[in-house]
Amino acid sequence: MFTCTLNPQSRTTLCDQLYEALRAQIMGGGMASGERLPSKRQLSAHLSVSQATVEAAYARLVSEGYCESRPRSGMYVAGELPQDAPAAPAKEPPIRWDFSTGTADAEHFPYAAWARLMREVLSEQSTALLMSGDPQGSYALRCELSSMLRSMRGVEAAPERIVLGAGTEVLAASLVALIGREKLFAVEDPGYSRVRRVLTTNGARIAPTPLSDGAIDVRALYLCGAGAAYVTPSHQFPTGSEMDMERREALLRWAQETGGYILEDDYDSEFRLFGRGLPALAALDPGGQVVYMNTFSRTLAPGLRLGFMVLPEALVPAYRKLHTACSVSGFEQETLRKFISGGHLERHIARMRVIYRGRLQAMERAAAQLGEFHYFGTGLHALLTVGGRTPAQELVPRAAQAGVRVSRLCDHGIVSPGAREERSVLLGFAGMDEAAIEAGMAQLARAWK
Amino acid sequence: MFTCTLNPQSRTTLCDQLYEALRAQIMGGGMASGERLPSKRQLSAHLSVSQATVEAAYARLVSEGYCESRPRSGMYVAGELPQDAPAAPAKEPPIRWDFSTGTADAEHFPYAAWARLMREVLSEQSTALLMSGDPQGSYALRCELSSMLRSMRGVEAAPERIVLGAGTEVLAASLVALIGREKLFAVEDPGYSRVRRVLTTNGARIAPTPLSDGAIDVRALYLCGAGAAYVTPSHQFPTGSEMDMERREALLRWAQETGGYILEDDYDSEFRLFGRGLPALAALDPGGQVVYMNTFSRTLAPGLRLGFMVLPEALVPAYRKLHTACSVSGFEQETLRKFISGGHLERHIARMRVIYRGRLQAMERAAAQLGEFHYFGTGLHALLTVGGRTPAQELVPRAAQAGVRVSRLCDHGIVSPGAREERSVLLGFAGMDEAAIEAGMAQLARAWK
Repeated sequence: MFTCTLNPQSRTTLCDQLYEALRAQIMGGGMASGERLPSKRQLSAHLSVSQATVEAAYARLVSEGYCESRPRSGMYVAGELPQDAPAAPAKEPPIRWDFSTGTADAEHFPYAAWARLMREVLSEQSTALLMSGDPQGSYALRCELSSMLRSMRGVEAAPERIVLGAGTEVLAASLVALIGREKLFAVEDPGYSRVRRVLTTNGARIAPTPLSDGAIDVRALYLCGAGAAYVTPSHQFPTGSEMDMERREALLRWAQETGGYILEDDYDSEFRLFGRGLPALAALDPGGQVVYMNTFSRTLAPGLRLGFMVLPEALVPAYRKLHTACSVSGFEQETLRKFISGGHLERHIARMRVIYRGRLQAMERAAAQLGEFHYFGTGLHALLTVGGRTPAQELVPRAAQAGVRVSRLCDHGIVSPGAREERSVLLGFAGMDEAAIEAGMAQLARAWK
Repeated sequence: MFTCTLNPQSRTTLCDQLYEALRAQIMGGGMASGERLPSKRQLSAHLSVSQATVEAAYARLVSEGYCESRPRSGMYVAGELPQDAPAAPAKEPPIRWDFSTGTADAEHFPYAAWARLMREVLSEQSTALLMSGDPQGSYALRCELSSMLRSMRGVEAAPERIVLGAGTEVLAASLVALIGREKLFAVEDPGYSRVRRVLTTNGARIAPTPLSDGAIDVRALYLCGAGAAYVTPSHQFPTGSEMDMERREALLRWAQETGGYILEDDYDSEFRLFGRGLPALAALDPGGQVVYMNTFSRTLAPGLRLGFMVLPEALVPAYRKLHTACSVSGFEQETLRKFISGGHLERHIARMRVIYRGRLQAMERAAAQLGEFHYFGTGLHALLTVGGRTPAQELVPRAAQAGVRVSRLCDHGIVSPGAREERSVLLGFAGMDEAAIEAGMAQLARAWK
């Protein structure tokens, strides 16, 4: 059987190593066109890697035309191989240091606790968990979320107002119908493109609204007649700034006066690494105009697809009318409930805060030689205004050439910003340990020297 | 601590028994206003029922005003109790026999296999499963689904065309943007109201289209200029009929000629209990106009939120552009993959087919005294045209008075049908065992005599 040596300590993922080894074997003629590859099960046992790793490597080989999958039969070397190695990989080395902001730490996932609680849930054999259940999610879980919101964010949210869903995208999609497709949805520019796309995909018109001092320009909301404003006050994406108290009050005033809804995405608020954060808009809202949204993608893992929102009381009946089932599995809901009520989530976040603080500090130290470093106290990415003579439009490609993934601030906006924003890159520090961060930053220094 | 005797053999669920006992205690003064109820954990241990059961009973007490939940503190008897027992429960007995079509069998869920595989998945500690992964879902799982579709339904679906999602509602919602909000979506009338609502909620205009001989009227599709038609050919909901071959061909011809999309909801096709079924439209489609949809809600359990669809190749790039994450948890995807590849799903379906056939036969025997019984070979509900002198509009209320839940055929349509449809009730047989079905049918005979 095909064999190769995989190094779990390497900065290249096992999957990428396996992909490279298989591709080399195929392109070197070691495996002929039409030859059957070992089954995922066989190869994973043979190489002592998970089936998911083999699967991902195979999927990439298929997508790039080296192999083809024949249902019920297996994986085969493609009849016609790509003429050359595909253009991109030939010119660009694989990414070894990933500073993108969408990544999360996978090394410290609390597998032991999660597995034990999931086992408990399954051994209870509750028939209730097998049914569709409440469209807002399990009431008991919502009680836990309610306590959590009170203690962590000072937000008073009755369980009756909480809605669980399979991630921010699913929840944001439901808000378009709830608030009204005829309304104008203001979004921050620069801002979070995924939510922007979810809104437009669901038929909403959006109004990209500039930032003023790091927060959405409230005057512009009045001006454009927005019916809702999607904002990230704890950790503005992508600039990283926090909305100050004055702007929070102005935004709430806008909502009160116009009847507009504030969609407060409180992502990353758990990761206040320095100083004290300001209260959530939902904690200040006097009159039911704030929809509070958050996710467990960062505090646990994106692959779990667990998010929730708190609706103003007035929107709850409409939500219940439009939805008959919650989009999260009953088993995972109950596991999450036990996880929170057992104090595991709180401990995990506290632990990760320490780890992330160390990573941030390692990054800041290494950034000194690169340019101006900006971090506003909260969240899992920082901003670097790159010094030196590398042209702004060369920053990302040169980093990629050196095996480093970064994005520029202006990649996240709709309207092109000033020269300073063009030289600012986002540096996520959730996905790598301190040593990798230091090595990646050193590599950036070489790429941009 | 509050105590009561719960009978797991009773036809009343443990949750309803517990609710009734607590309510009686509160209304009888056995627990005073403001008194704290035992924690869910304590009560579930004390009474030897699952926490989910206690939770559900508490949730109902809260929703009906007998108790209030105070976050971080617990559950308390409400300060002001409802003046009287709520109107509905006083006038109507609890539902003891539930013939509604949304139920599923929860007694035979393969807990042992599912728990073992989930344990395996969690013990592998794959970091890949923690990440967002492919927006269409895990490639390896899609390969399994592809084989399954080929062997069970004769549908050739490359894994690249398969999309996994958290249930039919989430998937149907994504189709509106994919096919185009400006298109007219034809739906069967009578038809499946949940999908109808998902389509309109997401901004689609729908055209309720009458049935002709148990299948959507293809002439009407040409006439109204539909751009898509949502159909249930294996087991038309609610009439239960199967679309015959001639109509399948006509429908495919319409799609070919007009470029319209057929949204084929193949739910219940696994439960062909008698005779041979016809091939799926997706198996007959010559030109990429059919979106095939199915769910594991019936073959496994609705609470898992697992559904999938097969897109025509032309729609895949747009799907990948609009979606960045799959809405199903990585752990559940991998558990399902192992479940299918280990042959568990096939065995479970085969086993349930035998069980459901027994239930259907019990129902048919009992139906002889009630009216004309209709079952077309596939699916988990039958139709009964009720004889006797009970007025049509009295059928459902009288059944409810007798503790039996049924719905009428005309409850699922938009345009009022003829007298015969008004006397037809849907009888789902998935949620009860044979003895309960017999008792429920006998109760119906008493209610309608």
